Amino acid sequence: MELTILGCHSATPRVNTHPTSQVLQIKNHLFLIDCGEGTQVLLRKYKIKFSKIKHIFISHLHGDHYFGLVGLISTFRLLSRENELHVYGPKGIKEVITLQMKLADSWTNYPLYFHELSSKKSELIFEDDKVEVHTIPLNHRIYTNGYLFKEKPAERKLLVEKAKAAGVHKAYFSKLKQGYDVENEKGELIKNESVTQDGPKARSYAYCSDTVYDTSIIPIIRNTDALYHESTFLEEHSHLTKSTKHSTALEAGKIASQANAGMLILGHFSSRYNDIEDFRREAAAAFDTIELAETGKTIII
Amino acid sequence: MELTILGCHSATPRVNTHPTSQVLQIKNHLFLIDCGEGTQVLLRKYKIKFSKIKHIFISHLHGDHYFGLVGLISTFRLLSRENELHVYGPKGIKEVITLQMKLADSWTNYPLYFHELSSKKSELIFEDDKVEVHTIPLNHRIYTNGYLFKEKPAERKLLVEKAKAAGVHKAYFSKLKQGYDVENEKGELIKNESVTQDGPKARSYAYCSDTVYDTSIIPIIRNTDALYHESTFLEEHSHLTKSTKHSTALEAGKIASQANAGMLILGHFSSRYNDIEDFRREAAAAFDTIELAETGKTIII
Repeated sequence: MELTILGCHSATPRVNTHPTSQVLQIKNHLFLIDCGEGTQVLLRKYKIKFSKIKHIFISHLHGDHYFGLVGLISTFRLLSRENELHVYGPKGIKEVITLQMKLADSWTNYPLYFHELSSKKSELIFEDDKVEVHTIPLNHRIYTNGYLFKEKPAERKLLVEKAKAAGVHKAYFSKLKQGYDVENEKGELIKNESVTQDGPKARSYAYCSDTVYDTSIIPIIRNTDALYHESTFLEEHSHLTKSTKHSTALEAGKIASQANAGMLILGHFSSRYNDIEDFRREAAAAFDTIELAETGKTIII
Repeated sequence: MELTILGCHSATPRVNTHPTSQVLQIKNHLFLIDCGEGTQVLLRKYKIKFSKIKHIFISHLHGDHYFGLVGLISTFRLLSRENELHVYGPKGIKEVITLQMKLADSWTNYPLYFHELSSKKSELIFEDDKVEVHTIPLNHRIYTNGYLFKEKPAERKLLVEKAKAAGVHKAYFSKLKQGYDVENEKGELIKNESVTQDGPKARSYAYCSDTVYDTSIIPIIRNTDALYHESTFLEEHSHLTKSTKHSTALEAGKIASQANAGMLILGHFSSRYNDIEDFRREAAAAFDTIELAETGKTIII
């Protein structure tokens, strides 16, 4: 899994700080997560083959998380896209995008599907043979979801020589990869673990923005390999978290620790701060393995 | 009058080519004309004091002319703007902006007024003691207006020594500046032109984008000091102008010539072309004084 950060600051776009957007490469998918103003320009700048994006996940309808969406949808039309595009986001997202198409008299020439969300419980919203996406209900000023991206468990690794030596016919190899015990050619039971090993670990990435500190998400994100948790503020402004429903870096660190995450990625920095290393320093009091979101950075999960 | 070009390309924003937006400084006003995605970042980049913008003129509701508007309106809120903001544009612009505010539960803390346009005739839409703004109905795929920005005629320049020598009491100086004849202290008629000169010339700027070649605008823009006329295409693609309702550079030159404009500014270039100097070369067959719109360029009118 590879995560590329496009924008990682809160509120308004500036020359060198961009609102939230990320691209997650997972199995054969390129998922776009949030889409602040200017996202399509950053996709070009970092040479991401954005015609391959088929699924866009919008956390909530504050502008710094979706004002770039309508432009990207229009650009796909101008580039003569033919592939389906699926947009997941809060109820209302379909109306606002289609109203703008109607006013422009410019409908897409590719199939565009909206999947509007309104549940306050975690839901499975996308699934294929290799990947699942679940919502993570967050606690913000308006209806907001994070997203949990999970690889499905891979097949077991077959130890071919051992299986042959145990007299298993190759017609059963597929069953072995799926984890079943099988019979060999003499009719003896061959235990799966004697001729296979664990396959590659299934990875997961939990994206949590925007939210106040809220431990109710822990059961959903527990043991995730990488957790992105917003950290709009440093501790000196912790008094602002309740009214704005944002978090501090230290609070993000506490969530990562309680969730037993493999790695914490911090972002959604308020542009009032000059040195984002301060976010790492403060979160480090609660959690060890920290990455800072930075425009153009790719993080291997 | 000073015109600063922010974006001057058609269709989709790219790393180095931006959709349409311009700032016109005229008397004590800073007018924003169109507002493609990324305009607020360009306003910051070119250090334009954009809190001073009180009037925004949107030509039409294709995304490359207004997708940056909702973000700019939001940013004004985050910057705690208090001044009124007036937005002029086609019917529908109010609905699309207010829908996005409603979904974000984020209303402006400053007075925001929409002036929706639907007339197909030229209208006076703004006027104060120094400036007038008129619409220029254009011929595009959807309802579109250009805008004509006119300084009002300045007062006449009083030749103080001559007026005194003619025996005019200073109580009448203001009448003289307004162009009236007056009586001197002996009761003799003093002709205005004997003691005044023409004041500074009142300037005008006509903004015409997007439009197919259409001479019906000539009476509205005649003798303008500067004409911005879109030139999406070069002649090699002139067959595309009818279906897309855009113009070539040569057609823009013909309009400037027929309108007796002081200067032609070309823009809205299709990004298919590598060298925008070709637009100047082609328009030069019809008109002499040509400027190319370029991001960051300021043109004195």
